[in-house]
Amino acid sequence: MRIIALDDTSMKDILTDLLKRDPNNYGEYENTVREIVERIRKEGDTALFEYTRRFDGAAMNPASIRVTEKEIREAMKEVDPALLAVMKKSMENIRRYHEKQIKNSWFDTQPDGTILGQKVTALESVGVYVPGGKAAYPSTVLMDIIPAKVAGAERIVMVTPPGKDGKVNPVTLIAAHLAGANEVYKAGGAQAIAALAFGTESIPRVDKIVGPGNIFVALAKKAVYGHVSIDSIAGPSEILVIADKTADPRYVAADLLSQAEHDELASAILVTDSMELAEQVSEQADSFLEQLSRRDIIRCSLDNYGYILVTDSMEQAVETANRIAPEHLEIVTERPFEVMTKIRNAGAIFIGEYSSEPLGDYFAGPNHTLPTNGTARFFSPLGVDDFVKKSSIIYYSKEALKKAHKEIEAFAEAEQLTAHANSIRVRFEEEE
Amino acid sequence: MRIIALDDTSMKDILTDLLKRDPNNYGEYENTVREIVERIRKEGDTALFEYTRRFDGAAMNPASIRVTEKEIREAMKEVDPALLAVMKKSMENIRRYHEKQIKNSWFDTQPDGTILGQKVTALESVGVYVPGGKAAYPSTVLMDIIPAKVAGAERIVMVTPPGKDGKVNPVTLIAAHLAGANEVYKAGGAQAIAALAFGTESIPRVDKIVGPGNIFVALAKKAVYGHVSIDSIAGPSEILVIADKTADPRYVAADLLSQAEHDELASAILVTDSMELAEQVSEQADSFLEQLSRRDIIRCSLDNYGYILVTDSMEQAVETANRIAPEHLEIVTERPFEVMTKIRNAGAIFIGEYSSEPLGDYFAGPNHTLPTNGTARFFSPLGVDDFVKKSSIIYYSKEALKKAHKEIEAFAEAEQLTAHANSIRVRFEEEE
Repeated sequence: MRIIALDDTSMKDILTDLLKRDPNNYGEYENTVREIVERIRKEGDTALFEYTRRFDGAAMNPASIRVTEKEIREAMKEVDPALLAVMKKSMENIRRYHEKQIKNSWFDTQPDGTILGQKVTALESVGVYVPGGKAAYPSTVLMDIIPAKVAGAERIVMVTPPGKDGKVNPVTLIAAHLAGANEVYKAGGAQAIAALAFGTESIPRVDKIVGPGNIFVALAKKAVYGHVSIDSIAGPSEILVIADKTADPRYVAADLLSQAEHDELASAILVTDSMELAEQVSEQADSFLEQLSRRDIIRCSLDNYGYILVTDSMEQAVETANRIAPEHLEIVTERPFEVMTKIRNAGAIFIGEYSSEPLGDYFAGPNHTLPTNGTARFFSPLGVDDFVKKSSIIYYSKEALKKAHKEIEAFAEAEQLTAHANSIRVRFEEEE
Repeated sequence: MRIIALDDTSMKDILTDLLKRDPNNYGEYENTVREIVERIRKEGDTALFEYTRRFDGAAMNPASIRVTEKEIREAMKEVDPALLAVMKKSMENIRRYHEKQIKNSWFDTQPDGTILGQKVTALESVGVYVPGGKAAYPSTVLMDIIPAKVAGAERIVMVTPPGKDGKVNPVTLIAAHLAGANEVYKAGGAQAIAALAFGTESIPRVDKIVGPGNIFVALAKKAVYGHVSIDSIAGPSEILVIADKTADPRYVAADLLSQAEHDELASAILVTDSMELAEQVSEQADSFLEQLSRRDIIRCSLDNYGYILVTDSMEQAVETANRIAPEHLEIVTERPFEVMTKIRNAGAIFIGEYSSEPLGDYFAGPNHTLPTNGTARFFSPLGVDDFVKKSSIIYYSKEALKKAHKEIEAFAEAEQLTAHANSIRVRFEEEE
């Protein structure tokens, strides 16, 4: 891996490079996606089946598009029982962590009879997109569905593209079944997102769509945003490790490579104040690389978006992490909790040398659907909050409104909204 | 106002009519907005000043675009001291209510040394859009800025279009000053949104953009979503009143008209099981109408999007409210708190006959920036949560990881992510 002594110029270049991966920059596909979305909205199933034939090579009809109980039973036979046991353990951890995120409705009273508060209500229906293709990522299925279940969503609808044989990946199906999906439909791409947003004859409209996908899925989610809610638009994955000379270079190198294997756009960055560690990690990375099955992808992503940045101080290392706002941040320093207090921008923070990033991907419980590509500046990990909405509660007694009515009328008049003022005034006009 | 006996067909027609107001349907302006956004992104101030000249008729330069202390002092002289006093009282209520929304970071420990949690951090910078034009809405300025301040945002940047004279509305300016805006820039429309999203030489890039605007502003917010966070895309306003025969028809009619005066797309709906109340409210509305200064707007919005719906039961009335998912919902029935428990979808719920909707617009404290046009199914009122983001916290001790390491490796191998498995394995290979 390349080693760079960090200064303002190299920092700017790196930030520019990283942002090239932004899924929001692929304007060239926007018109295609818009056309797909509009056709699904107008034509429903007809357009959906046509796109599924064209893009997935599968013939679907109203009877075959929904996964049946029988298909689930058959899929169950194909899944390794050992994997099933691990998934169940992982599910338990995910559920327990997310249950701690549940927020109550609340209210506050005043002696004059005023009640103000917030009513928290689960979304009624949630759509979960799961990509198809060769690899199945059951961990993502668990991470997307369980928080919605914990929040209390009544109807969880999963969509995933069918293979040419009209079947969906059995592991994906079983993960969805275990996690509690109520309905699974064989549809993928922008057309599946549009179907969830507007509804078709076969697929119900939902309130929110979550889950990762390719560029067409990402752009379709953005296109339907506002008609439904969406989780953030997922970009390529990143890891940033802050380490000092006390870190074990083998662990750091292994963790960097673990993110680099996701795809060619993934980014792995070490920031350290120790040139010695920098050199050791670089060597270790090279030596691991030879043994890893996905070495071609890793090499490509490290060449493009992998960096070992050497800083003058740990303060500069922390500042660098905050500027990059990585999806995954590992802190492997002498006093990692002290460093954590200074982190403003990161999706998930892994603290200490035994909190390796894949622990979070699979097992610990916190969600692995995290803000990518610098969006940790303003987006949060997927969680229970994503599957509830709030309503303000306002109750004023006659006494309380009477105390305030002249002020409210004055404010409304100042904004020239005289019907607003009138609605307060009529309640007291007979008394004056 | 027209009175309709509600059935499935009329319900569907009304839902279709209401959705015609959706700002997401104005595809025709999308290309214009995209061009403006791209030019600001590439050319910065040059494009910004050009658009400001073209759309606002004002000549701006790097020295004049930012509002100065002197301009604020001058604006202060122009504001009615009585309005200032009301704004301060209102601000106090807004601040107190939003302070109750503050959430702490939290963590949870296990006996094996595991620490899991969420770190809550305020966004660093927030952009607030305030429309220009003849009318000033200082209440909206307060509602947008105060929650960001309460959340702890360091830098609050307001943008608002200048008049031809290069000045901004004094009341808007003073509201921003009182609420705690750090910087105010004279820029409006899609160009101001793009400037906040990408930064120009004069205007800093922010993490999140909030505030209402016209269709160009709404589409620009959607276009930059993902580069920054945004609040929901604001559509036209609505009120829905659920009332039974115990309601005072004068109060109900006045409240319906108060929302109808916002603009021609505003919607005012009464749902009641009492034909007698329906007729009385209709009459009252006509009689108020003649006295109100904005009667032309009110008449237009009532003709297009005003309804008095008569249901067979209060259950059907509640079901209707949940399907429409109104921005503002008033419950004026014999036992309004019981009805409230059945409401799933509403931005703000006003309970009882003295909780008139304008009370919430100006005074009570809960935010008046609310999800419109059916989006209360999935969006929430603006609040402190909008100005913070969360980071997951994961700490495993060696002991804790050791207990789990084989399961994590198995899960990673099942997803064919061998570098993920490797990063866990290296930590224990010497012990086995």
